[in-house]
Amino acid sequence: MNIEKVNIAEKMSLFSDYFNPHVAGELNGQQVKLVKFQGEFIWHHHDNEDELFYVVKGSFDMHMRDKIVTINQGEFIIMPRGVEHKPIAHEEVEILLFEPASTLNTGNTENDFTVKDLKKI
Amino acid sequence: MNIEKVNIAEKMSLFSDYFNPHVAGELNGQQVKLVKFQGEFIWHHHDNEDELFYVVKGSFDMHMRDKIVTINQGEFIIMPRGVEHKPIAHEEVEILLFEPASTLNTGNTENDFTVKDLKKI
Repeated sequence: MNIEKVNIAEKMSLFSDYFNPHVAGELNGQQVKLVKFQGEFIWHHHDNEDELFYVVKGSFDMHMRDKIVTINQGEFIIMPRGVEHKPIAHEEVEILLFEPASTLNTGNTENDFTVKDLKKI
Repeated sequence: MNIEKVNIAEKMSLFSDYFNPHVAGELNGQQVKLVKFQGEFIWHHHDNEDELFYVVKGSFDMHMRDKIVTINQGEFIIMPRGVEHKPIAHEEVEILLFEPASTLNTGNTENDFTVKDLKKI
């Protein structure tokens, strides 16, 4: 078993595309994913997965149907399963996601943003 | 449902005791725990839980039986279930843990370090 540490900034430097989560770790059926984006994602929810968004760099607005919460560097938000949400970043943001390995980025919807085979970095 | 963001530095300012994980979030049967420590923990492993250590501030040495890995700010390490480990911090370190809610801090052992009822912050 090869147990190595992960440097998040180093892993973030390995890709530059937006809305494309890369897997940086796995534990207990969950995955640690790193993603960058700028702009507006789509409204969606996850039927069976809660999703944690931790901001590594920058900030973004998490839109929910009844409010908007701005998440800054060093902050996280947990979106419970079933809750519709849409992330929007006015400038590039770097995010660490913690969620079940089964989580599809676009949740209950499927469209151009959908990524099924995530790269491991 | 009250969905709020969590500011990690703010939560870290709410406690100062060492080796006492505080619960800052829950999702998918997993918990986000915040812990501070300085000094040497005890050798232990977890029979059924993988454990992620992410350094928010400072650094620490993760001792395994065959090597030592220094984890610095912005880095994480995943300790797979069954692997013996002992964290040591020469100066105060602030860590975020991702692990199943069932995880006991001292794993397969029980001693003065064991904390069973974690505070939520």
